[in-house]
Amino acid sequence: MKFKEVDGGVCAPKGFKASGIHCGIRKNKTKKDLALILSEVECSAAGVYTSNIVQGAPVIVTREHISRNGRAQAIICNSGNANTCNANGIEIANGMCALVEEKCGVPADKVIVASTGVIGQRLEIEPIKNGMDELVASLGDNSVSANEAIMTTDLVPKSVAVEFEIGGKLCRIGAIAKGIGMVCPNMATNLIFLTSDVAISPDILQAALSEDVRSSFNMISVDGDQSTNDTCCIMCNGLAGNKEISGDCPDLKIFKKALHYCTVKLSKMIAKDGEGATKLIECNVKGAKSVKMAKTVAKTIIKSSLVKAAMFGADANWGRVLCAIGYSGEKVNPLKIDLDFVSCAGRLPVCRQGYGVDFSEEFAKQVLSEDEIDINVNLNLGSCKAVAWGCDLTYDYVKINGDYRT
Amino acid sequence: MKFKEVDGGVCAPKGFKASGIHCGIRKNKTKKDLALILSEVECSAAGVYTSNIVQGAPVIVTREHISRNGRAQAIICNSGNANTCNANGIEIANGMCALVEEKCGVPADKVIVASTGVIGQRLEIEPIKNGMDELVASLGDNSVSANEAIMTTDLVPKSVAVEFEIGGKLCRIGAIAKGIGMVCPNMATNLIFLTSDVAISPDILQAALSEDVRSSFNMISVDGDQSTNDTCCIMCNGLAGNKEISGDCPDLKIFKKALHYCTVKLSKMIAKDGEGATKLIECNVKGAKSVKMAKTVAKTIIKSSLVKAAMFGADANWGRVLCAIGYSGEKVNPLKIDLDFVSCAGRLPVCRQGYGVDFSEEFAKQVLSEDEIDINVNLNLGSCKAVAWGCDLTYDYVKINGDYRT
Repeated sequence: MKFKEVDGGVCAPKGFKASGIHCGIRKNKTKKDLALILSEVECSAAGVYTSNIVQGAPVIVTREHISRNGRAQAIICNSGNANTCNANGIEIANGMCALVEEKCGVPADKVIVASTGVIGQRLEIEPIKNGMDELVASLGDNSVSANEAIMTTDLVPKSVAVEFEIGGKLCRIGAIAKGIGMVCPNMATNLIFLTSDVAISPDILQAALSEDVRSSFNMISVDGDQSTNDTCCIMCNGLAGNKEISGDCPDLKIFKKALHYCTVKLSKMIAKDGEGATKLIECNVKGAKSVKMAKTVAKTIIKSSLVKAAMFGADANWGRVLCAIGYSGEKVNPLKIDLDFVSCAGRLPVCRQGYGVDFSEEFAKQVLSEDEIDINVNLNLGSCKAVAWGCDLTYDYVKINGDYRT
Repeated sequence: MKFKEVDGGVCAPKGFKASGIHCGIRKNKTKKDLALILSEVECSAAGVYTSNIVQGAPVIVTREHISRNGRAQAIICNSGNANTCNANGIEIANGMCALVEEKCGVPADKVIVASTGVIGQRLEIEPIKNGMDELVASLGDNSVSANEAIMTTDLVPKSVAVEFEIGGKLCRIGAIAKGIGMVCPNMATNLIFLTSDVAISPDILQAALSEDVRSSFNMISVDGDQSTNDTCCIMCNGLAGNKEISGDCPDLKIFKKALHYCTVKLSKMIAKDGEGATKLIECNVKGAKSVKMAKTVAKTIIKSSLVKAAMFGADANWGRVLCAIGYSGEKVNPLKIDLDFVSCAGRLPVCRQGYGVDFSEEFAKQVLSEDEIDINVNLNLGSCKAVAWGCDLTYDYVKINGDYRT
């Protein structure tokens, strides 16, 4: 199903405004560090969060807010400090919600709060407090500003918005995301905020989001590290005027497809913008006995440092892919595996039934020198499949992460 | 228990000779590519192997030989080609054993065979056949040559030998190893060949080796990739003249301690010589509820790309260590975790009860600029502990692996 993409990011759906400013959490004044997304009216809300046992204070507070009754009206998020492993973390996260209540009239428990940045450094409330008036005054069609304010080492803002019809009503979903380091979600990847004007009940929305991330954000890996602060939240304000989706129905199917279009698009953007990455790697596994087998194999390949480094070097070292499949923990049969590398330069079969096939090194270099590479695996054991996204491992990944904090 | 180290590597124990030559598997004539270790008499033998489902042909052949009756007399090993994922792999591995039978009179099924190098490229028997006379003629006190011949991107040969007494008889264990890329064993790490003149029954030897690797080679991680060819074998020829160790007894305890001294020393050498590594990282986890918990946490930290990159940058980014503990899958309590970085420059406490403690950035830089760093974690939940070894993640890792094959 194709969807019409539109501009506007999180402000594309009716009734949403956004803003992003520099409030002083970061020393660099040219870098925005505080974002706000506000709906005119209260929304159905849902969230998925990191499964890391060490969780940021904002994750704890947001989960508590959304789980209470599935309602929210605003999102506040800072970058430059993760507000994690701090003695006063919960107090600060609650303080951020209270500031939104004070300045926007949204009850504190209807606020989604998130933070991203260094772990274990005390986050002070003062810069946020001092910046609130400017943040609220800047609210408007400013999805890009909000997007910039949640970025850390992201090179590009990541945003998408689509348009579709439900029951004759024009509906939209918009989203912004930050990705990059520590991208290996089991639940969601770093920060993704989605907005929509669709009318949908909170429980149906939560179920749709939880299901979606299993085949979108959960299938990305940049470095195998899972963040303490991963959060993916959606707010749906109902202003599109459709009949509320409150059960399994054709309208829900359309909504889920539009949602998945957005999340897959963001997943690819996040993977491609992995720290230091020069290439998007898409791993398609088919012929698996189960979806679990397909997913595990795809993610194991995408996570292999040796595979990632070979992709960086445009080296058709397919043995490393077979090796990764072998240690995935899944009971594959090595002597049934077919493997191709594919890019817009063409298709390069490298392995059939577990053994190498002859190929031209020159053509291999052409195929692997493109900036989007598919690793296509057929396990030839069944009919299940999965897709995972990652990136190559480069000098710059090491450079960025060797001295991130100081 | 301290052991006296001696020279000689695999030739230190009585009755062992070794050799290493260039036979032509590698194009570079200055790089040896074929090694032989021969005992005067038949030995008790034991082995542990990769648990990767995709296994090299030599692993399959060696396992079959040793499992038959726990006996062996020679080890032949080539570098430059892994003899894995080749249609004729088993044939070539058997052919290598047959050549040892032909030239040394050791029955083919008493030969341990191993290969390391690129996966999926056909290994030809001719260069090995043509090199056998020179290989056998070179047999002598040449552990270093054999060690060089099994190296791939290893920067230094890795060898150890110790002396100890059992029942008044002077005994020795010697060993050579190769490590480097794809070092994340569940069973053993790349190639480790141990020799000893101790008299010990095959079943007791196998049990001792299997137990040992769980807290030595299995606790190393360089890049999280597990090789298709990992093999650790030991041959004990009994020439020390001790009463054969055939059950649980004080003699066995001494032997196991000497063995562990060698395997831990090699583990550290392998970790420190990880591809592109500039530092040995030792992670000590204590206060765990179980040994499994301690091991899992230690290995998760050692494997984290973000922790490894921070160590390269001498950046005391301890939040990444907490983050790794959090996604280890073990039920730790974040609010009980204590964390120190330690090196010969001193001890740097960075986290107490899950929260950061103030520290001097200058002193932190001093501590982390050393080439051996300990990451000491106290989970404060119980009394179990574990140690894991790894290395930092550097530009050179990416460089080496971005174009290894071509």
